[in-house]
Amino acid sequence: MTKIRAIETADVRFPTSRTLAGSDATHPDPDYSAAYAVVRLDDPAAPEGHGLAFTIGRGNEIVVAAIESLAPLVVGRDADEVFADMGACARRLTGDGQLRWIGPEKGAIHMATAAIVNALWDLLAKRRGRPLWRLLAEMSPEELVGLIDFRYLTDALTPTEALAILRDRLPGRAARTEQLVESGLAAYVTSVGWIGYDDATVRARCREALAQGFTRFKMKVGATPEVDAARARLLRAEIGAERTLMMDANQCWDVPEAIARMRDLAAFDPYWIEEPTSPDDVLGHAAIARAVAPIRVATGEMAQNRVIFKQLLQSGAIGVCQVDACRLGGVNEVLAVLLLAAKFGVPVCPHAGGVGLCEYVQHVAAFDQIAVAPSLEGRFTEFADHLHEHFVHPVVVERGAYRLPEAPGYGVELRPESLRDHLFPGGPVWREG
Amino acid sequence: MTKIRAIETADVRFPTSRTLAGSDATHPDPDYSAAYAVVRLDDPAAPEGHGLAFTIGRGNEIVVAAIESLAPLVVGRDADEVFADMGACARRLTGDGQLRWIGPEKGAIHMATAAIVNALWDLLAKRRGRPLWRLLAEMSPEELVGLIDFRYLTDALTPTEALAILRDRLPGRAARTEQLVESGLAAYVTSVGWIGYDDATVRARCREALAQGFTRFKMKVGATPEVDAARARLLRAEIGAERTLMMDANQCWDVPEAIARMRDLAAFDPYWIEEPTSPDDVLGHAAIARAVAPIRVATGEMAQNRVIFKQLLQSGAIGVCQVDACRLGGVNEVLAVLLLAAKFGVPVCPHAGGVGLCEYVQHVAAFDQIAVAPSLEGRFTEFADHLHEHFVHPVVVERGAYRLPEAPGYGVELRPESLRDHLFPGGPVWREG
Repeated sequence: MTKIRAIETADVRFPTSRTLAGSDATHPDPDYSAAYAVVRLDDPAAPEGHGLAFTIGRGNEIVVAAIESLAPLVVGRDADEVFADMGACARRLTGDGQLRWIGPEKGAIHMATAAIVNALWDLLAKRRGRPLWRLLAEMSPEELVGLIDFRYLTDALTPTEALAILRDRLPGRAARTEQLVESGLAAYVTSVGWIGYDDATVRARCREALAQGFTRFKMKVGATPEVDAARARLLRAEIGAERTLMMDANQCWDVPEAIARMRDLAAFDPYWIEEPTSPDDVLGHAAIARAVAPIRVATGEMAQNRVIFKQLLQSGAIGVCQVDACRLGGVNEVLAVLLLAAKFGVPVCPHAGGVGLCEYVQHVAAFDQIAVAPSLEGRFTEFADHLHEHFVHPVVVERGAYRLPEAPGYGVELRPESLRDHLFPGGPVWREG
Repeated sequence: MTKIRAIETADVRFPTSRTLAGSDATHPDPDYSAAYAVVRLDDPAAPEGHGLAFTIGRGNEIVVAAIESLAPLVVGRDADEVFADMGACARRLTGDGQLRWIGPEKGAIHMATAAIVNALWDLLAKRRGRPLWRLLAEMSPEELVGLIDFRYLTDALTPTEALAILRDRLPGRAARTEQLVESGLAAYVTSVGWIGYDDATVRARCREALAQGFTRFKMKVGATPEVDAARARLLRAEIGAERTLMMDANQCWDVPEAIARMRDLAAFDPYWIEEPTSPDDVLGHAAIARAVAPIRVATGEMAQNRVIFKQLLQSGAIGVCQVDACRLGGVNEVLAVLLLAAKFGVPVCPHAGGVGLCEYVQHVAAFDQIAVAPSLEGRFTEFADHLHEHFVHPVVVERGAYRLPEAPGYGVELRPESLRDHLFPGGPVWREG
């Protein structure tokens, strides 16, 4: 028997606030950070599992503390037993009769759950010699359904319905895999339009991205109406009328304000408005969606769990599902949201950027497009071009598309020297900063 | 100038799981706990402010860590400046551009916000020589509205509407204060029906509560249909057909299951069904409310913030608003929810029990009934009869009603010896347990 020997944690932070990369209307100075978890087995020949929850600086230490509080639910268990029923393992982490009080399934405790669950999946995929997306795409519909906690979902999606969706897509899996390996995952670029950038920087980033083959671009909004309009005009001048422009308000508006502001910004033909208001406001998103159609409403990076996604989909509040890999409780809950989105016919465009999120979500998007989605239409994965150099297997993006990763695992293993240098507060980057 | 010198924290836990007090369908073995915060000024003659966030054991350490992470946003500031604009102080705690990522306004970080905000209010009320409810009830409508963060609320409640509600109730404040001082706050009792109790214990507790003058009783449901029905039958046999029986499922059902189970339990004439499903499921609660009417749907102890309450009220999902004093971000956000409830005509019956919650919510209920509510009808404050002896000023409940507290402050200051004995994991209660 091989036991899970330990879950080690690290507080890793990158000083991105020094350049305003990642700045938006609500988060003026993020330091992209990772509450990092490493799962070790008591077999020294076994690979390690690496997972992280993304945060933006202060507060990362709280998620690290939560990983440590959850670890005893996994450490000491038989690894083969855990890997044989990852659904049960995920439910054990979210269902603890005392820990759930400080969620349930939301905030620090749920992000910590994601770091652990994803680290376990990373380890399992490495053991099987598969990138995560292939490991999942090779599972039967029955196995996949067994991974999902349907609690609180059955009024919208039953296990039987989920099984039917997966079975329906089964015949085309091989062809779609081949197609995606060939063409890559369609991407869009966020890093042209951070709110803290001046016009010259935006213009330069835009031209770089055009030269790299991107055709979809996202800008931040939520400054004054005049500043937002000027920024949109600049972007449209650079990318032309035909290419796609998304807008992201990062939760900065109330519902009536979001509606009024998007009526003005409609002149710039935005493809979607992302996070127009509080991530908790299902009814508010639905009201905005009705008012700003045909502009789509998008949200997800702060949607705390599958129950919120269920409602966003039930109410027609979102036209784009921006699932995140480590805000939800890890791979298992992400699968639930992919199936909910398929049930309601809403395309999944995963949230990425930050640190490690691109590395994570390429697996999510690839699996979705191979095994769950009814078509590839309207499915673009977010891309931001920073901090990839810190990963053992950084993403590869060419001609505006992610190349599908082939390295075994879930992709967020940090290079040892990057981990060491960015430890907070003791690492050299912070001691010298 | 008097500065806020320090916020000290403590991890305090009571071993309630040893007796199954507090057990329910979702939380089989809670150890009632407090993530405790003490605010000290640099004036040695000034009182201390005591606040806590209630948890049920494991995970309390995470909320304590979050209090420590938030403390620098308050420590070092001029106390008079903070007390002159408590609305700004609360917004500073919830609006930090980095910390908000691990919420926003939910989970561990928000509960920690509650502990600090409530400790500051405790200190302010002690300085003014007033119990919190009196301090608030003596404020002008304009002052009260200035305490509230209306962000994300304005589609349902504007500052102007809130002001109108408060002004409308202004003339009757003195008479209602007198009435409540005389009669006390109507209460109901929860501690007769914990799910882990056997029939004999339930019967004994019930008879005690009847002898104490209670006329409203709550039982836990969520066991098998047969067990729930047997328990309801036992309670009805003890309390008769005329007294009020509430039921509490503690989130254990999916939506279709909640509807089916309440159709069966309707035979026992429940006044409300509490937490029938996930606390995040606004649409689910609304569907249940439509299906089980005229039985009211109640929720709130895990409703994470004012945005969820706004939607529960907008959608007609709840007929009873069970605001909690330390799940929301403290006094300021509680005021927002009281006003939302008044706007939508839903009575507030605060959640209590646990440790310190009764001590807290008597102030909330008294203020609501004096200054916000249109009438006293349908307003009962929860009561559970344990752990009060650990407080410097324990609640006084007589003839089924809370006597209004007159000691200055917000009521949750623990006796020094109780604090010391229950420190986790080093205190004598835990070392010997």
